[in-house]
Amino acid sequence: MKSFLPNFKSNQGQVIQHQGLRIIPLGGVGDVTKNMYIYEYGRDIIIIDCGVGFPDEAMLGVDLVIPDISYLKDKVDRIKAIIITHPHDDHIGGLVYIWPELKCPIYATKLAVGFIKNKFNEAKLPKDPIHIIDPENKLNLGAFGISFYRVSHSVPDSVGIVIDTPGSRVIHQSDFKLDWTPIIGKPTEIAKIARFSEDGIDLLLIDALGSEKKGYNEPEINILPTFKKIEEETEGKILLTTASSNISRIQMAINVASDAGRKVALVGRSMESNFQVARDLGYLHIPPGIIIAQEEVKRFPDNKLLLIIAGSQGQPGSALSRVANNDHKHVFLKKDDTVIFSADPIPSTETAQHALIDKLAKMGVDVRYKEMEDALHVSGHETAEEIKMMINIIRPKALVPIGATYRGMIAFSKLAKDLGYTEKQILLAEDGQIINLVSGVSRLEGRIDVRNIYVDGLGIGDVGNVILRDRKVMSEEGIVLVIVPVDSHTSQLVGEPDIVTRGFVFEREAEEMLSKARSVVRSCLADHPNAILDWRFTRSHIEENLDKFFFEELHRRPMILPLIVEV
Amino acid sequence: MKSFLPNFKSNQGQVIQHQGLRIIPLGGVGDVTKNMYIYEYGRDIIIIDCGVGFPDEAMLGVDLVIPDISYLKDKVDRIKAIIITHPHDDHIGGLVYIWPELKCPIYATKLAVGFIKNKFNEAKLPKDPIHIIDPENKLNLGAFGISFYRVSHSVPDSVGIVIDTPGSRVIHQSDFKLDWTPIIGKPTEIAKIARFSEDGIDLLLIDALGSEKKGYNEPEINILPTFKKIEEETEGKILLTTASSNISRIQMAINVASDAGRKVALVGRSMESNFQVARDLGYLHIPPGIIIAQEEVKRFPDNKLLLIIAGSQGQPGSALSRVANNDHKHVFLKKDDTVIFSADPIPSTETAQHALIDKLAKMGVDVRYKEMEDALHVSGHETAEEIKMMINIIRPKALVPIGATYRGMIAFSKLAKDLGYTEKQILLAEDGQIINLVSGVSRLEGRIDVRNIYVDGLGIGDVGNVILRDRKVMSEEGIVLVIVPVDSHTSQLVGEPDIVTRGFVFEREAEEMLSKARSVVRSCLADHPNAILDWRFTRSHIEENLDKFFFEELHRRPMILPLIVEV
Repeated sequence: MKSFLPNFKSNQGQVIQHQGLRIIPLGGVGDVTKNMYIYEYGRDIIIIDCGVGFPDEAMLGVDLVIPDISYLKDKVDRIKAIIITHPHDDHIGGLVYIWPELKCPIYATKLAVGFIKNKFNEAKLPKDPIHIIDPENKLNLGAFGISFYRVSHSVPDSVGIVIDTPGSRVIHQSDFKLDWTPIIGKPTEIAKIARFSEDGIDLLLIDALGSEKKGYNEPEINILPTFKKIEEETEGKILLTTASSNISRIQMAINVASDAGRKVALVGRSMESNFQVARDLGYLHIPPGIIIAQEEVKRFPDNKLLLIIAGSQGQPGSALSRVANNDHKHVFLKKDDTVIFSADPIPSTETAQHALIDKLAKMGVDVRYKEMEDALHVSGHETAEEIKMMINIIRPKALVPIGATYRGMIAFSKLAKDLGYTEKQILLAEDGQIINLVSGVSRLEGRIDVRNIYVDGLGIGDVGNVILRDRKVMSEEGIVLVIVPVDSHTSQLVGEPDIVTRGFVFEREAEEMLSKARSVVRSCLADHPNAILDWRFTRSHIEENLDKFFFEELHRRPMILPLIVEV
Repeated sequence: MKSFLPNFKSNQGQVIQHQGLRIIPLGGVGDVTKNMYIYEYGRDIIIIDCGVGFPDEAMLGVDLVIPDISYLKDKVDRIKAIIITHPHDDHIGGLVYIWPELKCPIYATKLAVGFIKNKFNEAKLPKDPIHIIDPENKLNLGAFGISFYRVSHSVPDSVGIVIDTPGSRVIHQSDFKLDWTPIIGKPTEIAKIARFSEDGIDLLLIDALGSEKKGYNEPEINILPTFKKIEEETEGKILLTTASSNISRIQMAINVASDAGRKVALVGRSMESNFQVARDLGYLHIPPGIIIAQEEVKRFPDNKLLLIIAGSQGQPGSALSRVANNDHKHVFLKKDDTVIFSADPIPSTETAQHALIDKLAKMGVDVRYKEMEDALHVSGHETAEEIKMMINIIRPKALVPIGATYRGMIAFSKLAKDLGYTEKQILLAEDGQIINLVSGVSRLEGRIDVRNIYVDGLGIGDVGNVILRDRKVMSEEGIVLVIVPVDSHTSQLVGEPDIVTRGFVFEREAEEMLSKARSVVRSCLADHPNAILDWRFTRSHIEENLDKFFFEELHRRPMILPLIVEV
């Protein structure tokens, strides 16, 4: 890794004078992912979650987006801990990039700690700062008293966080749903939440992604009959794909396989490693002898196999994508096989998942997906009614919707107004906006600068807007290089200017046009025979004239890069 | 326009000997768009539809994809006509690119002719080859007898086509739905279809996009109460966006505005021109004085305005996008305004539409869209039950699903089997596959080569896979140029090799790494002091070593382009 982040030497920075509690979302508002929230009281700071975001279409070549922690630069010694609500990448994925700058303790529930340690292992980071929390116990971190309650979600062991500071109590409720019969773990502890709320809650930060979704969620267990039915209908092997952190779904698939006498193989790196962690920590109940390695798949008849495979979003390079391209070492599809998509596409992956389903359909296997089969997936996220119930239990003085796009926050706002909240009590924050809670009143006051920090390969923070703009132009129109050789002493042109293109036109077919383009360059140089001394002028003169020429010829605007080569 | 298509001089090509009727989809199977179907009988050819496709994520910088007509190259003089089912771009958008190569008559219903003439006008093509068909009359084109029936769709005047050749009758049923109370035009003429089918239909090509959609469509008129309700709830102006060819939706919006005493302005080029055509041809009923120009908008109070605006898919540069960016000349949003999205996103535009809704929500206007409001849009496409009804009326001997992705074709296939069809009777064709219909039996036999023809700016067919591959590499990793100046006589290095990058790293922050990269280049040149004579070797030597170096340093693989500059 090469970090281009600002220098994070721990120092005794100025403590900004502010009263009461200050909350700053570094990511996760106005957007679903990249969740990270600063809580600051006096000298003490705690952080909730540290997630990654996923690049949008304009972020060409970017692997991940992480929160901008510049604000913490001179406050490292004041950070008591990072506390994790649940181990999804948009809540923990940023740790391997950001923790090395902060080096503070990390607190999470048991399964989350397992997943995080796995990531730290791969990144060759120390694992001793990662501590398991027991949701029954309170954590004292400087001015902060931290309590927990359990919530259902699509990964077991998720928690809501109660944050006490002198004079105020805030609840931080990230992703949740109601499921009274979860496959693994306990239901959302609403009685405990009610007790925490007895003496009044000043502010509730609450996930609002589901604000547009009517009604209530189905319980996870309702998927089981569908899995059983498909198992009975399948004469070949079954490939089931879901999010690799969805331990409950994996447990259900194993149960179905066990009843039907099928062996189970975990396929795909994330699937294997998450399974390993969950099994080692005792989250999964596995009948003896049922799990086989993917190398053993060929030793069993197809009707005795169920493979749980990574790649449910159609990610290129994932195990399922490789299988669909006939490019997997151990797994090959046959006509009688069934592939089950037990995951809805997330907004940015719709096209990829559609394409993968299409490819599999074309191979002649039976593909079961949302549109063709009911009850293949239930969401991990709360619905509008579930949000209303949570607000009714907590009855906070003010609300901050988190984990949602702006339209989701507006939908949340409508819903909260239906519950009697006024505009003033609903704070629609943006990343970097400061929420001040003083004497029981929460207000949006001021903001800090935050930008997107891009991870591209091993580089963190070195890809910025100039690079993305260049990539965009080249991706759509290609590049035209104009080579102008000049004598370094006399600045006289030596030899002919040349043009080389990439991603622009097929040079062999466009020879005539390119020869005209060379004339344009020559006349630019002839126009100002002495101006070659003023390279900046010559460059922009060539750029302008070629840009005009290519637009007239082809309606294309490639990047034009005149290279004046001194020899 | 610069066409790079093969030379289409009309000549007396060999007539390939084949019996009976031959049908070749050039586009539109295994994909929803780019519809174009060749029907060939003896020497005679007719073509149904001539649409464009939309670029997928891998087709960087491509504006449109058109069908590959290479097969028709030596058969131009045999083409009797292009017949159009309905005027959506995936059925007519290819005409301006392809018609100049074929120069045959075009037949379409009245509104479609209006839309096509508009396109020909803009492209400066002659309009006299475009003929209006009356769906009541039969068209005789060489060996082909062509009859029509009307179907409901999201654009008025859509037709199904009955194709008679000696010894066979085929029905070509493109996009349709059932709507017994259409706003404009007649319902799907099922009695007429039944009469056409009395003596037996050999083959039915039928749109299969809706095969995954259960039940029946709602009628278009069911949207009206929603429009009325929103109008009543809106104290400011209303912006309503929908597909600009959806004349019925536009009529409904005008009716609502008229009842409420609001003036109507059409905003956006496609919206204005389609409205103009539909009005001039008498498709719209417009109360006198209700339509105002967009320049007049500022003269009316907001609660007296309803704007019908283009850009429902979030297209960048569209009127609604410009309004959302505060960049429109005449339309500005205020807090009391409402924006209505009366269009579902199509698969490739989901992200763009979501982003536009989010931007509008952030501006504080009231946005009504699918998730927040029922009955804002009904699909123009048939559902599974509607497909089953159509098949039951026609009862063809064989079926070809068209206008759908492969998974849609598989869903269609399941549905057809439920109706008693066997695997042999359901022909799942790919683009270029030949369907032979001889003595009442249809079979897939052989295929012709078809590739994607890309339109980029003014160039048709000159952007190929090499260019797209280069664009992809540059879009994700940028480009590194290595300039090596050599003496043209002695082939000796003159001066230092230099490195220039774009879209790769921020050069100022990466100076150290780039200086190491220059050393890599220098050592490549020193390794083989005489090899500079073998430029190809030197180039690939530099490429390989720099590629390795950058991957080790940054896990990035930019395009590396060594430029050996002779002086």
